[in-house]
Amino acid sequence: MLEDSGSPKPVVTFLGPVASYTHQATLDAFNSSDFTLTPVITIEDVFASVQSGTAHRGVVPFENSSNGSVVFTLDLFADLQHKYPEIIVCGESYIAVQHCLLGHPNSRHASQPSSVSERFGGSRVGSGVIESPLSSGAVTPTSTIPNPQKPTARPAGDLSKIKKLYSHPQAWGQCKIFLNTYLKGVERQDVSSTSRAAQLVAEDPTGESAAVSSVIAARIHGLEVLARGIEDRGDNTTRFFVIRKRAEVEVGETKSVEGKQSGKDERGEGDWKTLVSFTIDHANLGSLAHSLAVFEKYGLNLTSINTRPSGVENWNYIFFVELKGRKEEGIEDGPVNKALKDLDSVCRSWRWLGSWENRLAR
Amino acid sequence: MLEDSGSPKPVVTFLGPVASYTHQATLDAFNSSDFTLTPVITIEDVFASVQSGTAHRGVVPFENSSNGSVVFTLDLFADLQHKYPEIIVCGESYIAVQHCLLGHPNSRHASQPSSVSERFGGSRVGSGVIESPLSSGAVTPTSTIPNPQKPTARPAGDLSKIKKLYSHPQAWGQCKIFLNTYLKGVERQDVSSTSRAAQLVAEDPTGESAAVSSVIAARIHGLEVLARGIEDRGDNTTRFFVIRKRAEVEVGETKSVEGKQSGKDERGEGDWKTLVSFTIDHANLGSLAHSLAVFEKYGLNLTSINTRPSGVENWNYIFFVELKGRKEEGIEDGPVNKALKDLDSVCRSWRWLGSWENRLAR
Repeated sequence: MLEDSGSPKPVVTFLGPVASYTHQATLDAFNSSDFTLTPVITIEDVFASVQSGTAHRGVVPFENSSNGSVVFTLDLFADLQHKYPEIIVCGESYIAVQHCLLGHPNSRHASQPSSVSERFGGSRVGSGVIESPLSSGAVTPTSTIPNPQKPTARPAGDLSKIKKLYSHPQAWGQCKIFLNTYLKGVERQDVSSTSRAAQLVAEDPTGESAAVSSVIAARIHGLEVLARGIEDRGDNTTRFFVIRKRAEVEVGETKSVEGKQSGKDERGEGDWKTLVSFTIDHANLGSLAHSLAVFEKYGLNLTSINTRPSGVENWNYIFFVELKGRKEEGIEDGPVNKALKDLDSVCRSWRWLGSWENRLAR
Repeated sequence: MLEDSGSPKPVVTFLGPVASYTHQATLDAFNSSDFTLTPVITIEDVFASVQSGTAHRGVVPFENSSNGSVVFTLDLFADLQHKYPEIIVCGESYIAVQHCLLGHPNSRHASQPSSVSERFGGSRVGSGVIESPLSSGAVTPTSTIPNPQKPTARPAGDLSKIKKLYSHPQAWGQCKIFLNTYLKGVERQDVSSTSRAAQLVAEDPTGESAAVSSVIAARIHGLEVLARGIEDRGDNTTRFFVIRKRAEVEVGETKSVEGKQSGKDERGEGDWKTLVSFTIDHANLGSLAHSLAVFEKYGLNLTSINTRPSGVENWNYIFFVELKGRKEEGIEDGPVNKALKDLDSVCRSWRWLGSWENRLAR
């Protein structure tokens, strides 16, 4: 084993800020002792840094288990402006996402003044939420919604002082039940990250705002956890992609390049995933079905499909398919290689967007 | 022709407020003399009113040509909570969407005071934007973005006083080039509609906010059009669905039910569209490809696919396919009917979500 040689470490950019979920995904995929982990502001910044070579790798969110695809990331892979032609996926990471409602102590119920023991900022983070009987969490059935879903989380105190909520747009869709039960009709402001939401609430002198954010952000910004685990589903998980520039390592890369990804030599096709985008001639009967059929022909299981506007003509689309298997480098007769060759004859255009090790435990 | 009998007109609900793009779509599909057109606040309100029978029909946005699907609408069709089991699509409407930047007169350049002739509120809406030389619209190429896109619209004055932007989330994605050129980094607040955005700007005493909204909203709220046609693509179009309750008219409905939809008797399969959702056994190799293949078997062209999380298990999906053709009522041997019968044997579950007349001119 070599000691640190003192040479600059390769840079990995991620959608920041520090302590964001993407940062957690980056720490999951990269040893911080071997890489310089650099937060950037937008998903496009991550793509641009990797395309330009400023960064060795980048980490971006791709989809959430409750809320679906991250369309900003899909659009960067669609690359309608040909800005990121060499970006491919080379790894993935799954991070459990627990959302909390963060606010000021004075947003608690007047008759139940905040005490130190009831606060969860600073070192008390992780001590658990004290449930108060102030809100029953009961949800009234109506004629239009006879069986409303009941949130599993309950607020630690009165939330009636909260006049404004801050969060990342993805978070609203992951916490619908709690927010519709306890904070229905409260104004919502989208911000660039859940960490930024917490910062804005911390800076709000009125104390009438709250953030849907993480328990880490509560600690960083000195906010109180007003409710913990407010996501609709307990298994709420976000999936992240590690991206790299295609030209860099193309031949003979039989193992994952990241230290934290295991590199076993013998792996079945099911242990790899591949992302492919393609466009079709929409006027041609069956061209979508034909394009999808080529993967089945070679025994490749399609695990997901996404579509985005093609950018060329209205109501034409670019399709993204993900499948189990990998494109072999330097070998013509791998099943993915053969499927892509066949795809070429039935679709209008296609692009291989990377093959990587499956990290989803089944 | 019968005169108005005085009996209550059937109600059509639409995603409001009045003068919203969905309202325009509703006026496109329904004669306001024959129906009571009622704005409601959310897309779910439209579904609920039709499911409960309060409304005869409802109108909801489904997808935008630049920005893709409306996931809120897809999730209501996915209906994971079994609240809207009888809702089907019975019509569609396409509305050209021209976005404008609306603001206060005092957000113009200090050296070029606003004059009546330069304002576009009130009756002067439609008189065209006066282009000033204050902003060149030049976009600086960088190493990461060597060929930046240039917006086609130019602001009528200085926008440097604008500190905050309001709009509907869909609008940001349709006006990326203009906003990134002239208003990069300005704080954005999502609101429920572009009309609401204009209202909030009109109420803002600082004059430092602006809305991405419509020229109609400028007139209603007395705002100035600071830039017109700021969408990325001149053919920016939103597609709307007319929904109805399934039980109501099921047999023998060979024509469209709305007065404004043409009802020719002889129409090919290409003159109709059908929406189907289905779920698959993700562990079963090829089940997605098999499910899609049934449509091709009967010569049905798939025109789009959408996916949303299944809500049952993480990384499982509900698929939405749209195809040319229609499910025949009371007839077993129509191609869509036969495809759905075959689908039953290869997918886990499926649902017919309606067949309607194609209104897209080709």
